[in-house]
Amino acid sequence: MSKTPITVAYGDGIGPEIMDATLNILDAAGAQLDIETIEIGEKVYLRGGTTGLEENAWDSLRRTKVFLKAPITTPQGGGYKSLNVTIRKALGLYANVRPAVAYYPFVETKHPNMDVVIIRENEEDLYAGIEHRQTEQVYQCLKLITQPGSEKVIRYAFEYARSYGRKKVTCFVKDNIMKLTDGIFHRMFDEIGKEYPDIEKETWIVDIGAAKLANSPEEFDVIVMPNLYGDIMSDIAAQISGSVGLGGSANIGDQCAMFEAVHGSAPPLAGKNLANPSGLLLAAVMMLQHIGQPEVASRVHNAWLKTIEDGIHTFDIYREGISKQQVGTKEFAKAVIDRL
Amino acid sequence: MSKTPITVAYGDGIGPEIMDATLNILDAAGAQLDIETIEIGEKVYLRGGTTGLEENAWDSLRRTKVFLKAPITTPQGGGYKSLNVTIRKALGLYANVRPAVAYYPFVETKHPNMDVVIIRENEEDLYAGIEHRQTEQVYQCLKLITQPGSEKVIRYAFEYARSYGRKKVTCFVKDNIMKLTDGIFHRMFDEIGKEYPDIEKETWIVDIGAAKLANSPEEFDVIVMPNLYGDIMSDIAAQISGSVGLGGSANIGDQCAMFEAVHGSAPPLAGKNLANPSGLLLAAVMMLQHIGQPEVASRVHNAWLKTIEDGIHTFDIYREGISKQQVGTKEFAKAVIDRL
Ligand SMILES: CC(C)[C@H](C(=O)O)[C@@H](O)C(=O)O
Ligand SMILES: CC(C)[C@H](C(=O)O)[C@@H](O)C(=O)O
Repeated sequence: MSKTPITVAYGDGIGPEIMDATLNILDAAGAQLDIETIEIGEKVYLRGGTTGLEENAWDSLRRTKVFLKAPITTPQGGGYKSLNVTIRKALGLYANVRPAVAYYPFVETKHPNMDVVIIRENEEDLYAGIEHRQTEQVYQCLKLITQPGSEKVIRYAFEYARSYGRKKVTCFVKDNIMKLTDGIFHRMFDEIGKEYPDIEKETWIVDIGAAKLANSPEEFDVIVMPNLYGDIMSDIAAQISGSVGLGGSANIGDQCAMFEAVHGSAPPLAGKNLANPSGLLLAAVMMLQHIGQPEVASRVHNAWLKTIEDGIHTFDIYREGISKQQVGTKEFAKAVIDRL
Repeated sequence: MSKTPITVAYGDGIGPEIMDATLNILDAAGAQLDIETIEIGEKVYLRGGTTGLEENAWDSLRRTKVFLKAPITTPQGGGYKSLNVTIRKALGLYANVRPAVAYYPFVETKHPNMDVVIIRENEEDLYAGIEHRQTEQVYQCLKLITQPGSEKVIRYAFEYARSYGRKKVTCFVKDNIMKLTDGIFHRMFDEIGKEYPDIEKETWIVDIGAAKLANSPEEFDVIVMPNLYGDIMSDIAAQISGSVGLGGSANIGDQCAMFEAVHGSAPPLAGKNLANPSGLLLAAVMMLQHIGQPEVASRVHNAWLKTIEDGIHTFDIYREGISKQQVGTKEFAKAVIDRL
């Protein structure tokens, strides 16, 4: 098999450790990758960049079109733009796919049967970055929702559901208040949904949907929603499934795709061989599927599952009586490799 | 004691039943109320009103300054404005206070120790109602946050914490993205917080805060936040505490106050003597405190608690093995009255 070029960034905080662990596992599993490394994050910001990305990073990303990204730290204060948002927009990554699965009884959770995929619109909404100080005391931010943007992510959600054999797609909006912006998202959901008669459809007002998600996530399957709701709901889902440390995500565009953990760079844990590499590893599994190496993806995923089921756990999911052995980042990676 | 004039609206769906139950309990408890009734909701909308409120309702509200409101139904479709939002703005009800408490082991919940009060800014944010269709395919809604608006609700939250002996106030914002709008809210929180050295303070980015709230609500005490986050978080909190049916709320302004259940009008349950009147009753308890009848408030609250603890439950919180008796709205009210 010829090698697939991908771009990799080690990021900040726990980034380098979990990326090392992930790449070691992919390598041992026989992933055919031609890796280009770029520098992003804190150091680049502090060197004077506003976006946290070296200039030549774009060349690499536009060439490989596949980005495996570790979490980064945005320096405090100053007018630093979110690197995540910059990349999502620059590369047109319109759909952010975030599965949240319970691994009960191996990982403690109050929601043993949950298995939900949140698909979040990833370029529009309040993330458009249009914000003003109108008068001395009045501030405004524009929530922008377009019909084509809504259509694209909604269609992606239905196609995703179909190709992964999922039964239901739910839409979260607040169109009792935002009749135009959330209204168009809801309308596109109803319209595009008609093309998928095989898939069950439902819509919840976001506050009620959020309450249901937090209380009985097992009632959901795929959920599609505008950007900011998706940001909030995907963190809730990851956390209540067991740990944000287990959440991987795919940011999908027409040309490019980016794969990353749902969690952040966790500076207090950095350099201590403590961090759970699972989020980034599961993102890498999604990447392997995306670049057409599904057998390697399955091999990694199964070995990871076996590790979790064998009770070999990093501190964040370690529980007396459930876990067998508490391990560090490196030992966890080795345990996965041993099970490939 | 002289009677306090209040305005009451029976609302739609289950509204009339839970209002009857609530007023019967208040009466039996010796509440001194001079009740004016106004008509709001579906019928008023369908008669051609856009706000769902009869014209003379405003007279009553401006006179009594205290409103006990049952949930209403907004008719589907059409350009109906949200009655809730209209009233909150017209009466300047800037703080929406929503306690969510677990009544474990009497009411089933996965979060037995939770006891959180969400205080939501209630007039600004995306609820300002400024929405446009910019081009055929592009829609925008303005998120508006002002310094005085933020200051007011934040100060209310700290004062609330102090007068109810609460230890911590947490702020939820997304100012890593919305640096101006959520930024000013965060800044006012830090600034006003300095005047309350006796109270612990913390701030979470809303997605992470939401994940913590959904997973370990017992870690929170009072939480203050902008309008839309508060809408979502208060529904989550009510639901995971046991049932949205138990959530009461107070909408506080400088002149007026409105008290209502957190839940909606639940049309499918209407007229069946099934609905849980607890949300509205607990809102009425907050109203009694507000109008200076704290002894009656305690009497009602204690009788209600005793009823719940005696396992006399409406269907929504009825659980085999926990509940003793499943009752309807009227029988529940009678059980509370028997325990006054
Ligand atoms: C870091 C932040 C800009 C980002 C977001 O809000 O999208 C993060 O919370 C996420 O969910 O990926
Ligand atoms: C009915 C709706 C306008 C309202 C809101 O969004 O504020 C409701 O959800 C609430 O929480 O009181």
